[in-house]
Amino acid sequence: MEQQVTDQSKNYKVIGSRPVRHDGEDKVTGRAQYGADVSFRDQLWGAVLRSPHAHAKIKSIDTSAALAMPGVKAIITGADMPKLDDKTTRSVEGIENQRYMVERVMAGDKALFKGHPIAAVAATDRFLAEEAANAIKVEYEVLPAVINPVDALKPDAPLVLGEISSVTLGEKSRKETNLVSQTRFEQGNVDEAFSTAEIIVEREFDTKTVHQGYIEPHNATALYRSDGQVTIWTSTQGGFPNREGTAAILQVPLSKVKVVPMEIGGGFGGKIPVYLEPVAAVLSRATGHPVKLIMSRADEFQSSGPASSTHIKVKVGAKKDGTLVAADSQLVYEGGCYPNVYAATGAMCIYSPYKLENARVDAFDVLTNTPKVAAYRAPSAPQAMFAMESCLDEIAQQLEMDPLEFRLMNAVDEGDRRVDGMKFPRIGFKETLQAAMNSDHYKSAPPSGPCQGRGTSVGFWFNAGMSSSATVAMNLDGTASVVTGSVDIGGQRASLAMIAAEVLGLRADEVRPSVADTDSVGHTDVTGGSRTTYATGTAVHKAAEAVKAELFKRAAKLWDVPVEEVVFDDGAFHHKGASKGDDIKPMTTRQLGQKLARTGGPVSASASVNANRGVGAGFGVHIADVEVDPETGKTTILRYTAVQDVGTAIHPSYVEGQIQGGVVQGIGWALNEEYVHDDQGRMVNTGFLDYRMPTMYDVPNIETIIVEVPNPGHPFGVRGVGETPIVPPLGTIHNAIARATGVRLRSLPMSPPKVVKALQEQGVAAQLVAAST
Amino acid sequence: MEQQVTDQSKNYKVIGSRPVRHDGEDKVTGRAQYGADVSFRDQLWGAVLRSPHAHAKIKSIDTSAALAMPGVKAIITGADMPKLDDKTTRSVEGIENQRYMVERVMAGDKALFKGHPIAAVAATDRFLAEEAANAIKVEYEVLPAVINPVDALKPDAPLVLGEISSVTLGEKSRKETNLVSQTRFEQGNVDEAFSTAEIIVEREFDTKTVHQGYIEPHNATALYRSDGQVTIWTSTQGGFPNREGTAAILQVPLSKVKVVPMEIGGGFGGKIPVYLEPVAAVLSRATGHPVKLIMSRADEFQSSGPASSTHIKVKVGAKKDGTLVAADSQLVYEGGCYPNVYAATGAMCIYSPYKLENARVDAFDVLTNTPKVAAYRAPSAPQAMFAMESCLDEIAQQLEMDPLEFRLMNAVDEGDRRVDGMKFPRIGFKETLQAAMNSDHYKSAPPSGPCQGRGTSVGFWFNAGMSSSATVAMNLDGTASVVTGSVDIGGQRASLAMIAAEVLGLRADEVRPSVADTDSVGHTDVTGGSRTTYATGTAVHKAAEAVKAELFKRAAKLWDVPVEEVVFDDGAFHHKGASKGDDIKPMTTRQLGQKLARTGGPVSASASVNANRGVGAGFGVHIADVEVDPETGKTTILRYTAVQDVGTAIHPSYVEGQIQGGVVQGIGWALNEEYVHDDQGRMVNTGFLDYRMPTMYDVPNIETIIVEVPNPGHPFGVRGVGETPIVPPLGTIHNAIARATGVRLRSLPMSPPKVVKALQEQGVAAQLVAAST
Repeated sequence: MEQQVTDQSKNYKVIGSRPVRHDGEDKVTGRAQYGADVSFRDQLWGAVLRSPHAHAKIKSIDTSAALAMPGVKAIITGADMPKLDDKTTRSVEGIENQRYMVERVMAGDKALFKGHPIAAVAATDRFLAEEAANAIKVEYEVLPAVINPVDALKPDAPLVLGEISSVTLGEKSRKETNLVSQTRFEQGNVDEAFSTAEIIVEREFDTKTVHQGYIEPHNATALYRSDGQVTIWTSTQGGFPNREGTAAILQVPLSKVKVVPMEIGGGFGGKIPVYLEPVAAVLSRATGHPVKLIMSRADEFQSSGPASSTHIKVKVGAKKDGTLVAADSQLVYEGGCYPNVYAATGAMCIYSPYKLENARVDAFDVLTNTPKVAAYRAPSAPQAMFAMESCLDEIAQQLEMDPLEFRLMNAVDEGDRRVDGMKFPRIGFKETLQAAMNSDHYKSAPPSGPCQGRGTSVGFWFNAGMSSSATVAMNLDGTASVVTGSVDIGGQRASLAMIAAEVLGLRADEVRPSVADTDSVGHTDVTGGSRTTYATGTAVHKAAEAVKAELFKRAAKLWDVPVEEVVFDDGAFHHKGASKGDDIKPMTTRQLGQKLARTGGPVSASASVNANRGVGAGFGVHIADVEVDPETGKTTILRYTAVQDVGTAIHPSYVEGQIQGGVVQGIGWALNEEYVHDDQGRMVNTGFLDYRMPTMYDVPNIETIIVEVPNPGHPFGVRGVGETPIVPPLGTIHNAIARATGVRLRSLPMSPPKVVKALQEQGVAAQLVAAST
Repeated sequence: MEQQVTDQSKNYKVIGSRPVRHDGEDKVTGRAQYGADVSFRDQLWGAVLRSPHAHAKIKSIDTSAALAMPGVKAIITGADMPKLDDKTTRSVEGIENQRYMVERVMAGDKALFKGHPIAAVAATDRFLAEEAANAIKVEYEVLPAVINPVDALKPDAPLVLGEISSVTLGEKSRKETNLVSQTRFEQGNVDEAFSTAEIIVEREFDTKTVHQGYIEPHNATALYRSDGQVTIWTSTQGGFPNREGTAAILQVPLSKVKVVPMEIGGGFGGKIPVYLEPVAAVLSRATGHPVKLIMSRADEFQSSGPASSTHIKVKVGAKKDGTLVAADSQLVYEGGCYPNVYAATGAMCIYSPYKLENARVDAFDVLTNTPKVAAYRAPSAPQAMFAMESCLDEIAQQLEMDPLEFRLMNAVDEGDRRVDGMKFPRIGFKETLQAAMNSDHYKSAPPSGPCQGRGTSVGFWFNAGMSSSATVAMNLDGTASVVTGSVDIGGQRASLAMIAAEVLGLRADEVRPSVADTDSVGHTDVTGGSRTTYATGTAVHKAAEAVKAELFKRAAKLWDVPVEEVVFDDGAFHHKGASKGDDIKPMTTRQLGQKLARTGGPVSASASVNANRGVGAGFGVHIADVEVDPETGKTTILRYTAVQDVGTAIHPSYVEGQIQGGVVQGIGWALNEEYVHDDQGRMVNTGFLDYRMPTMYDVPNIETIIVEVPNPGHPFGVRGVGETPIVPPLGTIHNAIARATGVRLRSLPMSPPKVVKALQEQGVAAQLVAAST
């Protein structure tokens, strides 16, 4: 089922193998410690009171009754949070206004979304804390709310923040608007090019707010000592960025805060922002006890950061031979209640797979009375590319071209420029398209029953670089350890240990990987952006090479030969030189390692890298066969294949797992997931029964084909894997439904009632039902 | 009260200051996690059945009744331990036979001392485990035992191990003896030199077995996973050596074992050996659960490693002008039941403070039916130097010379050789003697009441080097972190953070130190041998300098100037060069640190060092005024001053604390502490009520004078502090009692009954009582 298209010229010993992961047993036996497992004898539980209104002025908060309850130790409101100014700062989440950072975790004078934290309680047990939170009396003046970003751009729309900081807008003045960011990328002469087009498709698309849906909710336990030192135990995608966000809100130096990243039960971008950590810290400071907070599932939906709903217009022109000539798009993205720059990311992706010398895209980030949106796996790309890929499929259909052939004709290659000006290094898009076209799935005939069809789509993600650190140390028996600051979400312990093992000539199980807290290794950015095996892997590689350089010296010292005469080959150090005869026996790393104590002491090395330069983009091509039930509107996925260039697959099992996981999330986005709001802007489907994610009954086995076109920017060719696979499923399923039913919905999710309605509106429902029965 | 004799030429900003320790609040509030605090939901408790006999053959072990008890999950005996051969290996404890390593933690076919582990139980609670251990039926054949090392050398003595491994003896054959090691150091012509002596003193001395008496007992919790990975949580002086000892016994690679060193409640050398860890691991393997073991106080006395009892002969000759001409000594040390080389260490110290061109010392390590002795603060030096210093005091008395003047006359200096051949680099012994002679205490008249007197003595310890590793990383706000593998016993977090802070131009509280587990930093030897601030400090210094070198480059990049034009002065980077004008403003480390992300990414560095070469020896000179109650024999210490060259005092408060702590332990050794055995070789005083350590009521405030003669082998001149101060008190108190009563006991401890008996035997008791009343 799983296939791999690999460059076999590199003779790796460890890379590309599938060893058992180091953290496997702890995870399957339940010994792994997640944030919720943190517990102290004198620990208090916190609970957060959240706004029931999507937009309201907070007129007064009366905590007296709650505070009087026995066992309630402290109650805090926005007034108890550190006072920060309007200074703008850059964080991993983009441009941030410091005041907004604080008010996001505890409201100021307004509640900006349903679920906005209003007050927090610390009490002796969890249920008491919740009861006390409910006993807090808040007087609100309810204000009109706006949820949809298109509505929010209307002149008479309620203003979410009122006056927007000029700094955020990059302008000299301040103005009253919900539009916080507007980005245009353009190349060539778009209008002129459209006049040469022989076929033009221009369409509008809608997508709904969706949530990452990680199984483990946000959690944080904080201990704020009287000497000013704070420790935070939390499930986060990055201990260091979490520390930076928390320290910025608490206004203390980083040296006073230690973040211990616990094991994490899914993040997908949603566990980058800081929500509970500063609240737990302020409650701990107030009480002298460790304070623990855990979100409920409703909290997660209403108060963490989902992905933007969007309204997207795409216009594409082509020649009759299939050559694309021009594109023009407008992307309107829901931003939630604080400034964001997610629409621009969508704009960076929308045209990237294609040679388009004349292209323009305008991206609009819009404030709404919803929680500030956050990253969600290839943030902003799925929505934009869904729109583009639907238009392309329609063009291919109109031109009666094979949709993948059509894309291959227009595919970008090394040296081509993206609309945002970036130039591609060596990429594997064409190889990926070819692998898809050569796949068993694509070569077999499409399903031909009634309401059955095959869809395809392409996905692009640029992947991230950012900063990472690692320490590699030899043990005195020649085994080694690898320390990184990268939280292990998708198998990083295994992949990073394998990189060190490959360099050092050890087996994967001879290298012991660990995830360090913020006291124990150099600064490392989030596990996200598909960057960990690439960027932290680069740091591990650099540190391991430094260790190996010292091992060369030790071998030379032991043999009393010049270091230039020591070579490493086939897992062992050899003497190849003129200074001595050939009677020097090779030493494996294990053997040499055991002699370190006597040749100058132990060996260790650290490396910190900024990996922005060597980033290699990832392309995916997906194929889905579906069958639509025209009576119920339910779509069944008959077969699904995902093909992706990952550069080099360090541990192919985890690469396949990432691809399969991304596809399943994309299917949820395509078919079922959406935030539903009532007429006052309040989300109503705040649980997994009403917010419908795919289960194992909803998806077939996802077939994967790994394509390996090594990234020249990484010593072992790694590109990054995790995000690209969520991008194509939206278009793939959409195009499959279009081919199966003849109807293009252009609106997600394509849930059963929407499909039925669309079929009825198009007047094809009765005919399809008749054919199916 | 506390004084310091310091070289002020170095203009340190952080070194020499007294910041609050980073781990202070956690330790005073009880939040610090010690080994006993480790707890898991599915944890089992272990208990060890120990031999009631000092020497016995184990004929059979019947575990059936114990195993049948509900809640008992596993019982192991020596038969369940890994089988190791007789291979000899070198460990931190010296020469070790692998079979002995295993049998020390779980007896083979013989019990070799009272308290020798015979079997171990894992059960659902602690008391059940103990009950089950007591329900194990063991049939012994009791053998004759030998406790005293002098008795053990007699031809008809019981043989502790029978045939001694020839490898241990360094000989080709095997022989039946209890003498396991014999070391001679000799220089000059001793016999000829004695013929030129004008005064010769030749005496014999006895000391008893004493225990380190740390408050926290040994403990270990182990989890042995089915995939072969083992985690050990334990209070140990070194996570890495603990891992090496445990892995050697379990016969697994180091990459499979992680030791998490918990906070430690005292060690003093006694928490270097591995006792409970492999037992907990084998019980965990047998049950699949984490298993926790904690020693009782009786276990500690009977089954851990105390310091040797000794019998020492010293012969010293001098000229009438006080010049020492020759010395000859024989040191017989109790070794316990397995081979040891502690007597040789005593031999390396005994003459070291003095120029003695003609000297000889023979050291004998002897097997006895007692637990294998272990390191105890300046291991073996207190006993040997007590004997030497008593003889020297007697010579000074006979020559009517000031005892410190006499020592100064004969004091070693840079370039002099020790009897073991080592040559002294720059040392501060003379400065220390002079500081003692200039002290307020020594300049004030000795106490002149009845039975009052003043004693002095000198102490030497060579201090250790060994290997250490450290990682230093900059935070993105310009603060920093320091990671080391050195367990924090005496304030290492503070002293190591201060070293990094001094290099980087930060405050101590801007550097966050942490003690890493064995997965998280390079190999590091024990916290012991007074080596941590010296050797791990050297690693921290090296890593911090590497970080600073990168900071220079970043400043140059920011200013666009050659790196040679960047200078660091007064906590800030400055531009001093021709390439640009003088308008470049200096940047503090904090300011530059905040620009790292934008100048190439984060900065971190690791260093591993073998610090054996730069070790600087430590000398101490102590002065005590005492009063002896001739009726009860009780000695009261009226005033006590300890003077010591520490090289450079990084954090003077902790230096003073180490000196005071060493003195108090030495006073216990001098006046009260001893193992008492019954006629069958069984220790009988196995609790703190009967084994009498000094309490706060027994000692005055210990006055300290820190002398700072920088060690040229350390970048900041550190020598090491912790061990030297336990050496002089034995001789100091002994010589004070001699001066107070006219009687030299030459036998420790000088407990009240022994003092009374000695006064009576010397016929001075009645006369002294009369004078006192």
